[in-house]
Amino acid sequence: MTEFDLIDIIRARCAATRADVRLGIGDDAAVLVPPPGHDLVVSTDTLIAGVHFPMTTGIRDLGWKSLAVNLSDLAAMGATPAWALLALTLPAADRSFVEEFSDGFAELAAQYSVALVGGDTTQGPLTVTVVVHGFVAANSALRRDGARVGDGVYVTGALGDAAAGLGCLDANAVRMSECSYTPEVRAHLIARLMRPTPRVAAGMALRGRASACIDVSDGLLADLGHIAACSGVGIEVDAATLPASSALLALFDGDERIALQASGGDDYELAFTMPSTHAENMQGDIARIGCGATRIGRVVAEPGVRLIDASGAQIVLRQPGWQHFA
Amino acid sequence: MTEFDLIDIIRARCAATRADVRLGIGDDAAVLVPPPGHDLVVSTDTLIAGVHFPMTTGIRDLGWKSLAVNLSDLAAMGATPAWALLALTLPAADRSFVEEFSDGFAELAAQYSVALVGGDTTQGPLTVTVVVHGFVAANSALRRDGARVGDGVYVTGALGDAAAGLGCLDANAVRMSECSYTPEVRAHLIARLMRPTPRVAAGMALRGRASACIDVSDGLLADLGHIAACSGVGIEVDAATLPASSALLALFDGDERIALQASGGDDYELAFTMPSTHAENMQGDIARIGCGATRIGRVVAEPGVRLIDASGAQIVLRQPGWQHFA
Repeated sequence: MTEFDLIDIIRARCAATRADVRLGIGDDAAVLVPPPGHDLVVSTDTLIAGVHFPMTTGIRDLGWKSLAVNLSDLAAMGATPAWALLALTLPAADRSFVEEFSDGFAELAAQYSVALVGGDTTQGPLTVTVVVHGFVAANSALRRDGARVGDGVYVTGALGDAAAGLGCLDANAVRMSECSYTPEVRAHLIARLMRPTPRVAAGMALRGRASACIDVSDGLLADLGHIAACSGVGIEVDAATLPASSALLALFDGDERIALQASGGDDYELAFTMPSTHAENMQGDIARIGCGATRIGRVVAEPGVRLIDASGAQIVLRQPGWQHFA
Repeated sequence: MTEFDLIDIIRARCAATRADVRLGIGDDAAVLVPPPGHDLVVSTDTLIAGVHFPMTTGIRDLGWKSLAVNLSDLAAMGATPAWALLALTLPAADRSFVEEFSDGFAELAAQYSVALVGGDTTQGPLTVTVVVHGFVAANSALRRDGARVGDGVYVTGALGDAAAGLGCLDANAVRMSECSYTPEVRAHLIARLMRPTPRVAAGMALRGRASACIDVSDGLLADLGHIAACSGVGIEVDAATLPASSALLALFDGDERIALQASGGDDYELAFTMPSTHAENMQGDIARIGCGATRIGRVVAEPGVRLIDASGAQIVLRQPGWQHFA
């Protein structure tokens, strides 16, 4: 097995045909044809073994997730996905690893007609960097800096599942192992962690409607904090309105559930702000897409992000969100 | 120091202003405006500590080189560079490391007006993945698959310096340490390894002229092998014509020098094929750019790449080029 054998395996599984790919994997660079009148949207995320995923992660799941977290960034911009690159660093030239990884990557890529057009394969500690490219009509990308006082705050899907799923996997999480959860509940939570669904269709439905948007990767409050800071506003979140899956509801309540929903990372839902004039149509469209969207708060003038209980008092969490190097 | 502090340091140094960057570092993704009528050229290369560069590499040099090897891929396509992304994995949040790295990156980026528009900063074993984007007029990218029997084979600049520079750094390379090289010669060879000059201007001058092009990263014969295989031809290289710097000439001769020139990696020169009708104008243009180009062989029908001595006999090297996982 050489580097070139590995590239052949990846190419055979992931290099989908697209009319806008003039030259894909196999030259010094890919040659691509951007659609006229559109902006190019580009993002990259790195996943490192033992940092961003447990060492026990299924290889096929890792292939899926490495693309999913990147497509989630495109979703947060409202972009239509098109092309990806994969920089894969492996401890050894392991054919079955590369096959399984590529299968998981390709499974998600096929859902959005994403073509893998290039990358690099190197030897070293297991690290996956994916780059994704997508498009929006000129000047229509969703940004973090457009939230205005009076806008509603919304989130797609449900929050806290991925953090609960991580607890299910953690052998040291005594409290979780004492939980009386069913195999179905456990499987749901772990799948939400391992195979997140990037909210690509929801992001596209928010174009021209949302005033600001971000994906929930570090935790809801931390990520809303970026919208608040970039927009020069504050955000109040009503804890009681945070959406939860039936799996999360079955296992957690009270402050424990709120903490998972408000500060658990890795859910890859979209959090966004929107003037109320657009809310009704948006709610209908996102419901039809399947994930739904819930109003969870409002944009206010006072800077910062505050989690509020039913009496209007602020709830202070110990760990507001994930941070590297913290 | 948090991840966000590190990003601020990088942004302050590397996020150059370009009119075609609608939204740079600081959102979920960058938003860019491709020029109408052009193809987008995209490449990525990963550098891993201890694999692609010695652990003793200067940090500023590493910043330079991580961009240089990527710009070299754009040069091999004849593309004009525009935007870069940086996925930087660090063992710890080290302010001075990030400052020095960014300074080296920015120094080279400024030469080509490259703007850093996004990336990811993560904690783990030192790994640098850079992604570069450039442009060519529609359908004018240089590829590997256009070499035709009868074309001449050329290379820019000089070969073998980087491999000799690596020898200068290797404490175990007894033979090198016995060499009577001057400090100037040593500095030249190490600079060629640590601060390669991507042949961007030369690549642009080859558009519409070269029939195939590749950058010399793995070693001349190995890289010409890609052109030969992709084009369905063979290549004969005349060993006596391989260009050498005065530093290399001062230190090595005979088979030893030929081995460094023909199979040493990391030179980041451009190797290309061209019909003789274009050769004269090309030679003049590339000479004006400064690096020059040397005719080193010819495209033939018999598959494979052969190194030929003055008598026409084939020279067989022990190690034809660098390979991962070999």
